[in-house]
Amino acid sequence: MPQSARIIQLVTRPNGAPKPGDFRIADIPLPDPGPGEVLLQMLWLSLDPYMRGRISDARSYAAPTPLGEAPPTEAVARVIVSNDPALAAGDTVVVYDQWRDHAVRKAADCRKLDPTLAPVQTALGVLGMPGRTAYTGLKHIGKPKPGETLVVGAATGAVGGLVGQIARLQGARTVGIAGGAEKCLYATETLGFDACLDRHQPDLAARLAEACPNGIDVYFELTGGDILAAVLPLLNPFARIPVCGTIASYNATTPPPGPDQLPALMRLILTRSLTVRGFIVGEFAADTPEFEAAMSNWLNEGVVAYREAISQGIESMVPAFIGMLEGQNFGKTLVKLA
Amino acid sequence: MPQSARIIQLVTRPNGAPKPGDFRIADIPLPDPGPGEVLLQMLWLSLDPYMRGRISDARSYAAPTPLGEAPPTEAVARVIVSNDPALAAGDTVVVYDQWRDHAVRKAADCRKLDPTLAPVQTALGVLGMPGRTAYTGLKHIGKPKPGETLVVGAATGAVGGLVGQIARLQGARTVGIAGGAEKCLYATETLGFDACLDRHQPDLAARLAEACPNGIDVYFELTGGDILAAVLPLLNPFARIPVCGTIASYNATTPPPGPDQLPALMRLILTRSLTVRGFIVGEFAADTPEFEAAMSNWLNEGVVAYREAISQGIESMVPAFIGMLEGQNFGKTLVKLA
Repeated sequence: MPQSARIIQLVTRPNGAPKPGDFRIADIPLPDPGPGEVLLQMLWLSLDPYMRGRISDARSYAAPTPLGEAPPTEAVARVIVSNDPALAAGDTVVVYDQWRDHAVRKAADCRKLDPTLAPVQTALGVLGMPGRTAYTGLKHIGKPKPGETLVVGAATGAVGGLVGQIARLQGARTVGIAGGAEKCLYATETLGFDACLDRHQPDLAARLAEACPNGIDVYFELTGGDILAAVLPLLNPFARIPVCGTIASYNATTPPPGPDQLPALMRLILTRSLTVRGFIVGEFAADTPEFEAAMSNWLNEGVVAYREAISQGIESMVPAFIGMLEGQNFGKTLVKLA
Repeated sequence: MPQSARIIQLVTRPNGAPKPGDFRIADIPLPDPGPGEVLLQMLWLSLDPYMRGRISDARSYAAPTPLGEAPPTEAVARVIVSNDPALAAGDTVVVYDQWRDHAVRKAADCRKLDPTLAPVQTALGVLGMPGRTAYTGLKHIGKPKPGETLVVGAATGAVGGLVGQIARLQGARTVGIAGGAEKCLYATETLGFDACLDRHQPDLAARLAEACPNGIDVYFELTGGDILAAVLPLLNPFARIPVCGTIASYNATTPPPGPDQLPALMRLILTRSLTVRGFIVGEFAADTPEFEAAMSNWLNEGVVAYREAISQGIESMVPAFIGMLEGQNFGKTLVKLA
């Protein structure tokens, strides 16, 4: 039984892009699990863009990670010791935890997984938070209708890839934007996007206009930046914009130089009767059973694909996180520990 | 019977704030009304901020006024000659027309008014488009709940004054912003705002924060500019922003200098789960009977007040329009012709 846990501590708040030196690996003593508690060995840790916000002290919807502590993550773990009748040693669970390889937690904080139903790490991706984000953002805000055009950036990422596939299943024409030819090919060949544009090539705005001859009815906002700028002129009256990420600006230390486009955005919202709606996936927690049933069906029928960008070992956590924020991941970013 | 109509022609597209020389008064021949048509004498012409957009050629939800023609307006008119059984000489009607004193129109384009129910010009204000704008924007987007805080600028204008009063009737705490001490006093004393701030005084952001100790749940956007900037930091999670005007930027010829606040706005929409929704009142035309019944009741019960800024004669149309865009009007801007 392990006596210590390896954890990744945040030692300095990143100024701009996070650097390896902003973090430190440390071994800390593990307490013995008390009544109602379990000792967990983490098998998979999730990396998601929202974590950039959690290590910043800018006001947001959740408190920042204190210096000296480990950032949050969702993890798939194996129960090593259980002092609660609800879980047994050997069980596999999902738990909202931290960047570390072992933990003592209340059994009640853990959700048991059936490892025979799907690869367990899908609980962090296609069947987990990213999947719920795509599903509920489309259901409640994007509402793509048959024949409408949906655009999403980060189109091969954990959320974007599912946004495109779910919208296509709902009858929309889907246009993705991704970084590089290989991702674009995967988006059209495997994920079924009607078109995918390489954001690294010039003239994104003109290419997007060409790819969206009937304008844009739903823009699922994950990225901001140049992609948003290219989308705005193409939005149709009554278009919907679920806002679930703005990764292009996560590392920004100051607002970009002018001119100030905020008044133009407000005027566009007015003149085109746009709906711009931010959301955090927890708002739609009540949809979890519906989502899980729908996504499990799609996976079983083979109509939804997903891809994982897996790195090995807790030492890979920080480099994988930094790379994800730069768009180097190709699919759902995961760190495999055991 | 008049043989000609005085009209106000747009002769140059204003660059920035409209100037008197952008318009010209002309007399043009009036045709005889044909079958199904009526000859109208305009009694009241409406002036509304949206008309600034109609004389610009920037892309919007309606085509711009061609040079040489008269801008659009809604008018209350008297039927002088009728060639249609639906209307008789002497009837009072509302018609969406142009800046002119007489017109020949299809009777079917006119909506007959009962002049015994309310002063006829209220069909252009509290019982007309501005009233419907306030009512439907709150009903479908703002949705103020009892105890919530609503903020609106242009708080003594045709729309803003009704937004505050309707929201108060629905149980919200209402904070207005208006230009000058006299308007602010009227807003609190007569319109029942819980507070009203003078936008001409310094430190608007700090004063607004003080006036909204529980944050802002609904911001009814009519103005943009400094008012929007003061509102944004105070918005509560799940706040709603019906966007129905951005008058502060209507005369802008270029975007304001930087930094670019658009990324910060998108991040705020995300982290506070905001709903920002543009609308044009026609979207909610189906609510007209419901609105008219509700507003008539409120007026009869004396729980809603309104105020009119009336100028006399068609020669006053352009100066009144220019003044309204500068916030010189105090209440619903009207031009009385007869």
